[in-house]
Amino acid sequence: MSEKKPVITVDLGGTNLRIALVENNKVINRVMHPTPRGAEAIVGLIAKQALELAEKEVAGIAIAAPGTASPQMDRLSKAPNLPELNDYPMAAEITEQTKFPCIVENDANVYAMGEVFYGAARGLHTVVVYTLGTGVGGGIVLNGKLWRGVNGAAAELGHVSINEIGHLCSCGARGCLETFASATAMARLAKKYGSNITTAREAYEQANMGDKPAQQAFVRAGSALGIAIAAILNTLNPQAVVIGGGGSSAYSLLEPEIEKQLKVRAFPAALENFKLLKCTLGNDAALLGGAALIYETFETQARAALK
Amino acid sequence: MSEKKPVITVDLGGTNLRIALVENNKVINRVMHPTPRGAEAIVGLIAKQALELAEKEVAGIAIAAPGTASPQMDRLSKAPNLPELNDYPMAAEITEQTKFPCIVENDANVYAMGEVFYGAARGLHTVVVYTLGTGVGGGIVLNGKLWRGVNGAAAELGHVSINEIGHLCSCGARGCLETFASATAMARLAKKYGSNITTAREAYEQANMGDKPAQQAFVRAGSALGIAIAAILNTLNPQAVVIGGGGSSAYSLLEPEIEKQLKVRAFPAALENFKLLKCTLGNDAALLGGAALIYETFETQARAALK
Repeated sequence: MSEKKPVITVDLGGTNLRIALVENNKVINRVMHPTPRGAEAIVGLIAKQALELAEKEVAGIAIAAPGTASPQMDRLSKAPNLPELNDYPMAAEITEQTKFPCIVENDANVYAMGEVFYGAARGLHTVVVYTLGTGVGGGIVLNGKLWRGVNGAAAELGHVSINEIGHLCSCGARGCLETFASATAMARLAKKYGSNITTAREAYEQANMGDKPAQQAFVRAGSALGIAIAAILNTLNPQAVVIGGGGSSAYSLLEPEIEKQLKVRAFPAALENFKLLKCTLGNDAALLGGAALIYETFETQARAALK
Repeated sequence: MSEKKPVITVDLGGTNLRIALVENNKVINRVMHPTPRGAEAIVGLIAKQALELAEKEVAGIAIAAPGTASPQMDRLSKAPNLPELNDYPMAAEITEQTKFPCIVENDANVYAMGEVFYGAARGLHTVVVYTLGTGVGGGIVLNGKLWRGVNGAAAELGHVSINEIGHLCSCGARGCLETFASATAMARLAKKYGSNITTAREAYEQANMGDKPAQQAFVRAGSALGIAIAAILNTLNPQAVVIGGGGSSAYSLLEPEIEKQLKVRAFPAALENFKLLKCTLGNDAALLGGAALIYETFETQARAALK
């Protein structure tokens, strides 16, 4: 394949904003800033840093942001964690200031693109990625393309029910996967079982040192993940599932419980050649995934224009 | 669009085998036979009837069959209800005897194609279909194409967990949707709640006559369906979900409970413009769906050949 133009990728969080120049599937240069308040300040900072990082022409700017992106990927249509960006025409503003095309996408979706195209699932085309962080999210890649759903709202994988009468979830429902497998949930479970910890990281450390209640929390999180992943196998029959996000550091504790559930709950035909994988890109997944998203989007548009 | 050649479609069940000639989205002619025993007898009967029904050249023969179809759609790779067809090269045998191309697909998938292309979801392109029968199955159509999964095992929608410690399912897991929303399950629930019935049909009749325990069974089935459908909305964000199969006759009892769960569990962005629909084609869904499958498969192959 011919060399592709570099891409500017942005990982926009509620606390920090990271911007990178990605070329040949590598982060060439990067900067980080505290996320400013207000839509114009955020957009202005992204545009300024993008122009500084782009030494030559770039294929585009991809922004991974918390919330639901619009079907046109030109803005966040729902942005509970950055309400100033709710329905604000981010992409158009950034293009006006930089002259580069810009797309906005849900951060977990972009993360998934990174792990599928450049990380744990490299070489595979149909993969579901779970991101275990403060919340639980994910991304779905089908036949090499991000599945966004008709409103851009697909792959909210933390919000499938594990226990219909379970713990109240931030989304308003009860017993969602997120109430078992997020960092908050793992810490809550470890405490509930009797461990003397306050964070998921402490729970993980205690579990590794043999603390039974902490271990029990990861068994519970892993079995909930296994139930959710079995449902995904029976629904989508993907080649692989990737466990990503900060919670993946506990992969060795979660994995046996996931496998146990898959053996009982997933159909044999869906388990054939199936791979359960741990993420490999760490914090760079969303930065690299942005490049994959830019290439995919513009190639799809180019193909559509030829029809 | 130019007129398309007619298609021979087969709905192959464990008890009966129905064969039809479908032209311009209508069943033109049909026959039904008891399903013979033995792979050669089944294939021989399909070939003989196909040749009799096909007055002129047909685009192909589509067989909707119980089980998992191979990725190449040339046979059933898993056929628990018709073990004689397990891995038997059905399509090649039928093509040899008729000279028409032939494809084999899971019956619920073909049913879904019927409801999406010619039935309840006509005009929509991204739709999930549930079939409520003796078991619970389904089909997923994404951007106008059947989603089969990498091994042809996708859309086993009855086998997602509603209650991890629930009733034992025929698949070996506990608390699958099927243990709440199949005909067997609805009858079991009505009896458990105290109704004096033996079949799902009786439970439905009793519920309509005001029998509280029977009504309670449909409330339970509907809420389980609602939990599963909310998970599908948060995962795939489709335009619509269709409730099909024999159990859809109880749609008026199930629908309020489904809606109640969706309101609590589905993300607002996934609920925007979403439609919950009742099937419209009855027993003809699989016969009509076979035609849609033949057209889709051969058009996809023709496009791939042009590349």
